Amino acid sequence: MLDKPHEECGVFGIFNMNDRNIAQDIYLALFALQHRGQLSCGITVDYGEGVVETVKNSGLVPEVFNADTLDKFKKNGIGVSGIGHVRYSSKEFAERANNQPLVMRYARGIAAIANNGGLSNGKTLRQSLEADGAIFQTGSDAELIGYLAAGHRLKEKNMESAIEKTMDEIIGAYSFVMISPNKLIAVRDPQGFRPLCLGKIEDSYVVASESCAIVGIGGTFIRDIEPGEILVITKDGLHSNKRHCGQKTSLCIFEHVYFARPDSVIDGAGVHIARKRAGAMLAKENPVDADVVIGVPDSGIDAAIGYADESGIPFETGFIKNRYVGRTFIQQTQVQREKAVHIKLNPISSAVKGKRVVLIDDSIVRGTTSAHIVELLRAAGAVEVHMRISSPPFLNPCYFGTDISSREYLIECNLSEDEICQRIGVDSLGYLSMDALYSIAKESKCGFCDACFTGKYPVECPDLDKDDKFTSKLKTLEK
Amino acid sequence: MLDKPHEECGVFGIFNMNDRNIAQDIYLALFALQHRGQLSCGITVDYGEGVVETVKNSGLVPEVFNADTLDKFKKNGIGVSGIGHVRYSSKEFAERANNQPLVMRYARGIAAIANNGGLSNGKTLRQSLEADGAIFQTGSDAELIGYLAAGHRLKEKNMESAIEKTMDEIIGAYSFVMISPNKLIAVRDPQGFRPLCLGKIEDSYVVASESCAIVGIGGTFIRDIEPGEILVITKDGLHSNKRHCGQKTSLCIFEHVYFARPDSVIDGAGVHIARKRAGAMLAKENPVDADVVIGVPDSGIDAAIGYADESGIPFETGFIKNRYVGRTFIQQTQVQREKAVHIKLNPISSAVKGKRVVLIDDSIVRGTTSAHIVELLRAAGAVEVHMRISSPPFLNPCYFGTDISSREYLIECNLSEDEICQRIGVDSLGYLSMDALYSIAKESKCGFCDACFTGKYPVECPDLDKDDKFTSKLKTLEK
Amino acid sequence: MLDKPHEECGVFGIFNMNDRNIAQDIYLALFALQHRGQLSCGITVDYGEGVVETVKNSGLVPEVFNADTLDKFKKNGIGVSGIGHVRYSSKEFAERANNQPLVMRYARGIAAIANNGGLSNGKTLRQSLEADGAIFQTGSDAELIGYLAAGHRLKEKNMESAIEKTMDEIIGAYSFVMISPNKLIAVRDPQGFRPLCLGKIEDSYVVASESCAIVGIGGTFIRDIEPGEILVITKDGLHSNKRHCGQKTSLCIFEHVYFARPDSVIDGAGVHIARKRAGAMLAKENPVDADVVIGVPDSGIDAAIGYADESGIPFETGFIKNRYVGRTFIQQTQVQREKAVHIKLNPISSAVKGKRVVLIDDSIVRGTTSAHIVELLRAAGAVEVHMRISSPPFLNPCYFGTDISSREYLIECNLSEDEICQRIGVDSLGYLSMDALYSIAKESKCGFCDACFTGKYPVECPDLDKDDKFTSKLKTLEK
Amino acid sequence: MLDKPHEECGVFGIFNMNDRNIAQDIYLALFALQHRGQLSCGITVDYGEGVVETVKNSGLVPEVFNADTLDKFKKNGIGVSGIGHVRYSSKEFAERANNQPLVMRYARGIAAIANNGGLSNGKTLRQSLEADGAIFQTGSDAELIGYLAAGHRLKEKNMESAIEKTMDEIIGAYSFVMISPNKLIAVRDPQGFRPLCLGKIEDSYVVASESCAIVGIGGTFIRDIEPGEILVITKDGLHSNKRHCGQKTSLCIFEHVYFARPDSVIDGAGVHIARKRAGAMLAKENPVDADVVIGVPDSGIDAAIGYADESGIPFETGFIKNRYVGRTFIQQTQVQREKAVHIKLNPISSAVKGKRVVLIDDSIVRGTTSAHIVELLRAAGAVEVHMRISSPPFLNPCYFGTDISSREYLIECNLSEDEICQRIGVDSLGYLSMDALYSIAKESKCGFCDACFTGKYPVECPDLDKDDKFTSKLKTLEK
Repeated sequence: MLDKPHEECGVFGIFNMNDRNIAQDIYLALFALQHRGQLSCGITVDYGEGVVETVKNSGLVPEVFNADTLDKFKKNGIGVSGIGHVRYSSKEFAERANNQPLVMRYARGIAAIANNGGLSNGKTLRQSLEADGAIFQTGSDAELIGYLAAGHRLKEKNMESAIEKTMDEIIGAYSFVMISPNKLIAVRDPQGFRPLCLGKIEDSYVVASESCAIVGIGGTFIRDIEPGEILVITKDGLHSNKRHCGQKTSLCIFEHVYFARPDSVIDGAGVHIARKRAGAMLAKENPVDADVVIGVPDSGIDAAIGYADESGIPFETGFIKNRYVGRTFIQQTQVQREKAVHIKLNPISSAVKGKRVVLIDDSIVRGTTSAHIVELLRAAGAVEVHMRISSPPFLNPCYFGTDISSREYLIECNLSEDEICQRIGVDSLGYLSMDALYSIAKESKCGFCDACFTGKYPVECPDLDKDDKFTSKLKTLEK
Repeated sequence: MLDKPHEECGVFGIFNMNDRNIAQDIYLALFALQHRGQLSCGITVDYGEGVVETVKNSGLVPEVFNADTLDKFKKNGIGVSGIGHVRYSSKEFAERANNQPLVMRYARGIAAIANNGGLSNGKTLRQSLEADGAIFQTGSDAELIGYLAAGHRLKEKNMESAIEKTMDEIIGAYSFVMISPNKLIAVRDPQGFRPLCLGKIEDSYVVASESCAIVGIGGTFIRDIEPGEILVITKDGLHSNKRHCGQKTSLCIFEHVYFARPDSVIDGAGVHIARKRAGAMLAKENPVDADVVIGVPDSGIDAAIGYADESGIPFETGFIKNRYVGRTFIQQTQVQREKAVHIKLNPISSAVKGKRVVLIDDSIVRGTTSAHIVELLRAAGAVEVHMRISSPPFLNPCYFGTDISSREYLIECNLSEDEICQRIGVDSLGYLSMDALYSIAKESKCGFCDACFTGKYPVECPDLDKDDKFTSKLKTLEK
Repeated sequence: MLDKPHEECGVFGIFNMNDRNIAQDIYLALFALQHRGQLSCGITVDYGEGVVETVKNSGLVPEVFNADTLDKFKKNGIGVSGIGHVRYSSKEFAERANNQPLVMRYARGIAAIANNGGLSNGKTLRQSLEADGAIFQTGSDAELIGYLAAGHRLKEKNMESAIEKTMDEIIGAYSFVMISPNKLIAVRDPQGFRPLCLGKIEDSYVVASESCAIVGIGGTFIRDIEPGEILVITKDGLHSNKRHCGQKTSLCIFEHVYFARPDSVIDGAGVHIARKRAGAMLAKENPVDADVVIGVPDSGIDAAIGYADESGIPFETGFIKNRYVGRTFIQQTQVQREKAVHIKLNPISSAVKGKRVVLIDDSIVRGTTSAHIVELLRAAGAVEVHMRISSPPFLNPCYFGTDISSREYLIECNLSEDEICQRIGVDSLGYLSMDALYSIAKESKCGFCDACFTGKYPVECPDLDKDDKFTSKLKTLEK
Repeated sequence: MLDKPHEECGVFGIFNMNDRNIAQDIYLALFALQHRGQLSCGITVDYGEGVVETVKNSGLVPEVFNADTLDKFKKNGIGVSGIGHVRYSSKEFAERANNQPLVMRYARGIAAIANNGGLSNGKTLRQSLEADGAIFQTGSDAELIGYLAAGHRLKEKNMESAIEKTMDEIIGAYSFVMISPNKLIAVRDPQGFRPLCLGKIEDSYVVASESCAIVGIGGTFIRDIEPGEILVITKDGLHSNKRHCGQKTSLCIFEHVYFARPDSVIDGAGVHIARKRAGAMLAKENPVDADVVIGVPDSGIDAAIGYADESGIPFETGFIKNRYVGRTFIQQTQVQREKAVHIKLNPISSAVKGKRVVLIDDSIVRGTTSAHIVELLRAAGAVEVHMRISSPPFLNPCYFGTDISSREYLIECNLSEDEICQRIGVDSLGYLSMDALYSIAKESKCGFCDACFTGKYPVECPDLDKDDKFTSKLKTLEK
């Protein structure tokens, strides 16, 4: 795969008001959220009276779910509510035990949780809980949040109060859905780092990381879950606890630049429009005299169209991306690994031959893939290649649920622009400015987190100094 | 499958003194223990410094473990210790979350546990722990024991002391192996309900549910773990805590009748000999004038040889059991289901035609399979069929790790012998007496639990009256 | 899948001059040709002295080939030559026996063949051969061609002469590669219906259905195989037999419109350019007052860019195509089947809302998919939808290797344009004219077959009146 | 697997008179014949009017057939007739192209064939046919027989006459079933080398390699197919052509010794009885003073019971054979390979400790497995081991459908008995005499082939001197 930052998760939930086959709804929704996580996926459906069915495994949605596994849900009858999850994962948490949804049994019955995010005090909290006797079976924030909420639930009158108390303790990004007896709860952290929205299909309520999942299954988008909101859905309808609302908000701006699907609308701002605007702003800030604008498929296409529209330079399809090359692709030697770039991504010679090319991408991470792509363009006859990036340079790790965290990236970004030009073989390089970035999703009702560009973290990060070796060495793999 | 009671688990552990590939050792040992559980299996290896690798899944050993999954272990280097598990499971606990070994992380690091048994106060204990805030992710006794031990470990100076305290709380059958940092611990409950024994391969110590697993991997049997013993294996050798030893012991006598492999020796008594003796005693107690003795394959063969030797009636191979018919066998209608008995088990006409047959089996459960087998014999020309059972009738549920627990069985056994004869179509029926049963494994250093025959439970059973509906409805399935 | 005409095959061959791992080369090349056939694929490598290894199966390249199957080739040492095949297939020939390459043994040793095309006298020839005693095991033209060539080979001095004789008998489309002892032979029919070209990688010669496969594996395109040419490759180099060259040529024009990959160049004409030109011509011939031009992904995109450039109406990405929805996608009811269109293809609301949309596609077949797409656009807020098709209407079946053959299509196309507009719900509809079509690939050294549009077949079609029921009912499926 | 000679095939056919689901019948029957071939299996059903469905693949019956593949048959309606095949295979013909049934299309429609046997003039015939222009796609005798029969069918009035002519040309062992339009044909070679019998289930006729398959699916045995008989089954009933009957017959005597299932009856003689008699004769011819008789599982058990009965020495179950160790068993080093013998086969110590053991097996091939087994017995405490083989020594290759063909075996057998004793570590060794062998199945209406023991081949073997390298190097593997 191309070297890109990765979003770690997508979540979905549905509360059944119409005798729907909700496992099938969740299955469809997970296809629409698959871009947010390709390592594992899962579905949990609550049938009431303590009957809960979970199917989860490592793999893509079509790998984990088939007629057999979907039938497991049908035989239990009509579900009360259900949640689903797709997960990417940094290497640190790749082990299978971390697959979600996570089901817990405790004195108040069943709780099932699926989370998207990253706590900046997760390790700190775990260590203090373990010192008090806590036992964990996974490394996920979902387990930590579930553990805290279940603990509070013993003293609180209901799960939403327990979650309210839990939110006093946890810091960072979390957008989660939770099944509790007879209710579905959707929670977004007070900063709103990750998206989460509400919709309806027939009379049944759905919540999803992105609106494309709601629309994708045939439903209607209603509104975003507010940063800090605890939304409880029961057969009597919606109820919100907003005690944690009203703080300064900071949606991850990279949702607009790369993570989210272009047909999603987040906090009022359309992602496709944001990307086209980023391209247009990039054209204004980094103009160049050229013959053709092409985008790196698939994520650079929208910004390339924006760049082309603004600059008047014609947009072109510069590459054919091979849709059949997937995870099982076999490369037997290093030479073949290099050749494989042709197989995965081949330039259309007639589109670039003899031309000065503006090449648009949303980010440079290691730069190795960029260098290969530029090489392909030159081999296909491009006479100049001007790279334009529709975001500012990454300079800082992310603690809120993406894997922009390794020092490797930082080293790469500490090269000067000239050095990067040389490294990836382009004639010029231009980044979008922070100011421009802020304007691409100006309809957003949320502020933005730009810590990966600026280093200004919107919340405390107590885990910053923790040695996480221990965690990273635990591996539980199931076939 | 033939309707038989099922043993619920088998365990194995090894402490590495020789740079052995211990994952491979465990893999081989699980083949030798597969008869104790065919639903799922798993291996956990501890590589020291918190690095633990687990592969577990639903399926037989050759289905779960292949070159790929075994390679996962190799890449981590030499393991310090490892444990393995095979599991049958009553329907109640079939969910995948219960697969073992179970790995836990807590303030003292890692603990991994694999257990064989059944606690008679498990539900009672769980409910009281949940009332105090405990959260569980599985329904297994292994999780409960691990939870208690880890809790005590926070206050105790080492894990063996923590286990000693845990044993004050738990009642019933448990033979478990546990990985704790730098040690392997093997524990057998004070009554010794389930077998557990110690062996050596080169300089490495191994513990196993049955001696056949020790011998099967090329090792040497040393001794049984004593009922009540906590055996700790470290690089300095063996250390035993025997505070819980010395109580009245009660090995499950059905280990000798059916569960264990004939080549195993348990508490000093050989299983093969026990079965032949059961057959011989049966011949003395229930003689019959007949032409040939045949055993229901595979478990009735040894007793049939014993019956033949004692009675002087010739032993014969009466049936061909089809070794290719397995779990994926497809039967499309009820008629085919009946026909399938021929495919699975076909009588050898020439061995039974025109003959008076003594048919030996170790138990009757529902009686449906017995009836089919008798019908096959008659169709093949047997003129008389005299059924002899090498154990007394089941009259009571088992709470100690087998699935002789459903009321269905009891109904069957409440029929009079005459009614059973009629139901299964035999000319006569005879059971082994309790007295005779006690003599079949007379070398045993352990007493026996005969609760399923007599209803006299050797320990308290606080769970007896619990409504277990809740538990039985939780299902977590992973593909 | 979207309802489109399907190309039936792609072929690849390599003659090893460099001790290359040619199975790996073919494997990579088949990825680049996968768009030409997704039903099955296969590789045959000749190791000399009669040793031939074939791996073929139903499925995509990454499904059929994995580390295990590729290793089969490695263990035989260095291959002399090898061929590969991808196959779509009309239902008529879906059976597995038709998978290719096909290996035959006869008096002169081994012959292996992989073919792309469709004979218009195949059934006629088969029947006359069967009357003389021929026995066939498949329904493929490859078997027929191989049978004829092997027959002639017994009397001819070499395989190329035998093929020359065979070409006197067969009529229609065939581009095939054949392994014969110590040689690789590439043959294109005298009309050149299907593309076939020659390239080089290091010193090894390669032949491929499309240039993208040559470039994709890191090789260099040399030239097209001439219509009618028999190209023989041995260790002494290239040798051509052109006795069948010089006839009127007729490359399938739909290769440019839809079948071929945009980065391929066929007979001197670039496919990407041809599609953009088709879009531009379409804009000239069928202008419309609109706000945005979008293409149906993926095949309508290039023409849409051409339309936008020519018309001055902005190009937009109108849809998100879900790349994870594949063949294993499960739809449980008709309602879900309709919903599935959203999951597979979702409009970007912000790109079309309130806009007059020009929607570009390369063809309408049944029209059902077009109707769904238009409905999606309207639901997303498009105020007008003007459909423009970058080819003329299909009116006639194809006998030359594509599945534009069913009467269903013709019925659809016999509707008037107004009726079609109404059926698919568009405000206007426009097709590319035949004249314009001829100009899109004006660099082509080949003439074009336009029989599917005009009904003028460039060669005789003796099979036209054959009842093909018999053939269609033979099914040989292997798992 | 243990080193034993291997039978190469089993066949089954059914002609439907009752609207039966005949694919399911064949599926069940193949389970009952699986012991005759474990490499591949297949089913072909004829639905009339040229509709034929075949599912065949490498693997065991439960691996190749599942709900999906069995459903392929159901959707075609009620079958007219069907055939099935299981195949072992010497390495020479392991390639997948040789899987059966084989379907051919020719001027008279469809012919499908499944064969058990080995022609002694197969290579000779092929070469002469190839010289006349024949093209083959497999290396199987089934293809050769089908090719000849289809050729004759063009001139003959029906398929049975064509087969009669074919039988004039082919020499050696063949028991085949063939589907021809509206009929099922069963043919056994004039010597009757391989068994083939007729039965009935409801009103439908079935033919099978062994009676156990007829009884196993719930049918009734009628009679054996006569050596030389061509049995034609149509809706009007049975019709026999016996022009080739009446020659000297020679059933492979190893069917009784090892190949066939004990519950089968062949040409009037029961296999189980034959094996017990072989054991009894062995006791008479090779008595020994010992304490216990044990058989090598599974094939030595019956002879061991016979030996025990005759000698008065008690029979014992000496080994536990692990039923879970199959083809996917992983052994990582040579040491583990040796250890694996314990896992596959473990002696029951209590049965042999301190005892003088008579160990019964049906044959020694390489001797390596025998040596391992004896070593296990000694390690378990046996004080003496006396090996008794229930057949004479192998001294000659077989050309009639088994793999007793390699020179390796002969070298082993050319050792003196003393040398073999030493090699395998036994105290004494005894074989059954040829005279005794002839008496074990004295009820047989057929004579016997004993060429592997005597070197007297009952028919000509023209292929004896052919260099078969060419054939052995062709490999067609499909995943």
